[in-house]
Amino acid sequence: MTPGPDAREPDVDALADALRRRPTVRLGDGVDPTWRDALDGWARAHGLEVTERDATLAITTDPGQAGGSAWVHSPFAGVEHLAPALPDGVLLTRTTGTMPGRIAEYVLTWVLAERWQVARYLTQSATAAWDASNPPVAPARGEAVVLGTGAMGAAIARSLGGLGYRVVGLSRSGRPDDAFDAALPLAQAFSGEGPDGTRDGAARLDTTPFDPTRIDVLVLALPHTPHTDGLVTPGLLRAFDGVHLVNIGRGSAVRTSTLLDALDDGTVRHATLDVVEREPLEASSPLWRRSDVTVTPHVSGLTLPSDVVGALDAALTEIRAGARPASAVARKQGY
Amino acid sequence: MTPGPDAREPDVDALADALRRRPTVRLGDGVDPTWRDALDGWARAHGLEVTERDATLAITTDPGQAGGSAWVHSPFAGVEHLAPALPDGVLLTRTTGTMPGRIAEYVLTWVLAERWQVARYLTQSATAAWDASNPPVAPARGEAVVLGTGAMGAAIARSLGGLGYRVVGLSRSGRPDDAFDAALPLAQAFSGEGPDGTRDGAARLDTTPFDPTRIDVLVLALPHTPHTDGLVTPGLLRAFDGVHLVNIGRGSAVRTSTLLDALDDGTVRHATLDVVEREPLEASSPLWRRSDVTVTPHVSGLTLPSDVVGALDAALTEIRAGARPASAVARKQGY
Repeated sequence: MTPGPDAREPDVDALADALRRRPTVRLGDGVDPTWRDALDGWARAHGLEVTERDATLAITTDPGQAGGSAWVHSPFAGVEHLAPALPDGVLLTRTTGTMPGRIAEYVLTWVLAERWQVARYLTQSATAAWDASNPPVAPARGEAVVLGTGAMGAAIARSLGGLGYRVVGLSRSGRPDDAFDAALPLAQAFSGEGPDGTRDGAARLDTTPFDPTRIDVLVLALPHTPHTDGLVTPGLLRAFDGVHLVNIGRGSAVRTSTLLDALDDGTVRHATLDVVEREPLEASSPLWRRSDVTVTPHVSGLTLPSDVVGALDAALTEIRAGARPASAVARKQGY
Repeated sequence: MTPGPDAREPDVDALADALRRRPTVRLGDGVDPTWRDALDGWARAHGLEVTERDATLAITTDPGQAGGSAWVHSPFAGVEHLAPALPDGVLLTRTTGTMPGRIAEYVLTWVLAERWQVARYLTQSATAAWDASNPPVAPARGEAVVLGTGAMGAAIARSLGGLGYRVVGLSRSGRPDDAFDAALPLAQAFSGEGPDGTRDGAARLDTTPFDPTRIDVLVLALPHTPHTDGLVTPGLLRAFDGVHLVNIGRGSAVRTSTLLDALDDGTVRHATLDVVEREPLEASSPLWRRSDVTVTPHVSGLTLPSDVVGALDAALTEIRAGARPASAVARKQGY
C-alpha cells in the first residue's frame, strides 16, 4: 500500500540544496504579528534571511505568496487552501505542535461537562438552588467512536480511553493505531446506500462491530478535504442512537441541517461544536440558544508561536539530513 | 510506628465466632429503601438472617441502632457520627466502593471546566455570541496540592497527574504514596503560628518545597474528624496565591468566612464546593451567586447499592479468614 513515486511529491535533496544556495524565508499571511520576533529569531539562528519577496521558504496560508518557493510551511494545521493550490514538487509542511494534546483536553472537558451536568449545576449555583435530585451517574454506555485517526484523533482516543471508554477509530485506511482499541475503514463501517441512492451509508455500525446503544460519544476529528466534505451524512448518523457528538475538526464534515435533524430525532443527544460550516457562526443560526447544542468559537486548537518554531525547526533538521519531514502534507491526500 | 494493642480495636476471631453463633443482620437508618433487595439478597447468600432487632451485624448510620452489635457497617464513606459513639471493641467498617474514582472524575471535570472557561462559553452559546478573544491557554502553573492522601486523595492525584500536574499530597503522617509526586506531613508544611497564637500556620509552603505561584489547584479531600475540623485556616490558605480550591471531603474542613476572605483577597481565585459547612446550603449564603464560587449539592461521591454489597462481601470474607477488613475504620483516628 506504499504509494509509488508521485510527481507531486518534492525532491528533498534539491530543496536542501536550494536552502544552501538561497537561504531566504518570507513571512506571509497567516503569520500573526505577535509571532514575528520568534520567527525572526529562528531564521537568524539558522542563517536564513527574512525577506518580503519570493523566498526559498514561504511561511504563509496564502498560496499566492508561495510563488517561486520550493518549501511552503503552513503556520496552522489546516491546509485546505494551500494543498490543492501549490505547484507539483513544492514541499508543504504544517504546524501541529501541542495542538493534539490541547484538542484532546477540549474533548475531555466537554465530554465530562455533559456527563457531570456542569451547565445545570452552574445555573443552580448562580440561582441559589440546592437540588440534589437526579445526580450524575457513570454512563451505562462504554464506547466512543472517533472519526479521523491522525495525530488529533489518536490524542483524543487516549484521553477518552483514560475515562474508561473502549475507543473505536474510523478512517479511510482503517490502519490500526495503538491509541485505539479498534480501527476500521470507513467504507467497511458504512457500506450501504442512502434512500436517495447516494453514498449515504445505511450504516453497518448497528450490526458489526458496534451496538449503537453502547456508543456514548462520537468525535469528529477530520481535516477538510474533498473526501471529508459532508462525510457525516444522515445515513452515517443513523448508525448512532442518542450519542454526544463533538466536532473539533472542520465544520464542513457535517451539514448544519443534517445535525439539526439528528438532534430533533434523538440520534444525537447533544452536540458540542468548536467548528461550524461557516465561521463565525451567524447570529441567526438555529444552533445558538439550544440547550442540546454548545457552540464554542473555534478555540480548541490554538497555535502558539513556539509550536510554529518547533515545527519549522524539526522540518529544517530533517530536510538538511535528506529526509522527508514528518510534518509534510501528502499532496495527494491533502493532509 | 505500628500502633500497639488498642482496647478500642475489635477481636476479629471473636467476631467470626459471633457471626457463626448468631448469623443476624439489621438494616437500619442510612440504608436507602431502594437498596433493600440487594442487601436482602446478599444476606441470604451468606446465611445471614435479616432482622429488625439487635443483630451481630448492623448496617446503619445511627449509633443508636448498633446496640449489641459486634460489627457495624456504614453504608457511606463518612463515619463521623458512628466512629466516636460506638463502644470499644466494636468493628466499624465503611463503604468506599467506586467513590474514589467518581470523586476523582468530579475534580477532573471542574478543574477542566475552570481551565477551559466552560461557564463563559455556555453563556456565549446561550446568547448567540461568537467571541474568540482571550481563549483558554494551558495554565502556566504546573503543581497541584491535595490535602488528604487516603483512597480519595490518591485517586484525585492520579487524575490530576494525567493532566500534567506535579501533585503534592499533604496528610497527618506524610506517608509517601505512589499516586503522589511528593508527600509531606501537614505539621511540616504548615509549622508557624497564626496571629492569634493558635495553630494557624504561617505556612512554610512559600519557602520549601513549594512556590505558591506555581500551585494551580488545591483539593480538600479530608474526612470529618476532630483533627480536620477547621484545619484549613486563614494562615494555611496564605501559603497559596490565586489557587483554584476544590472541596470534595467535608465542609467542616474550612469555615465559610475563611473561604470568603481568601476569595476576596485573591488567595483563592475560584472555589468549587461539593460540600459546605451546613448542608443544604441556606439560600441566604453569600457563597451563592458569586462568579468565583461554584456550589454543587454534594453529588461527587454517590454510593451505589453495588458498592455497599461489595464492601460487605469483602469484609465478611476477611473476617471469616480471621483478618481485619481493609475497610475497617481505625477507631483511634476516626477514618
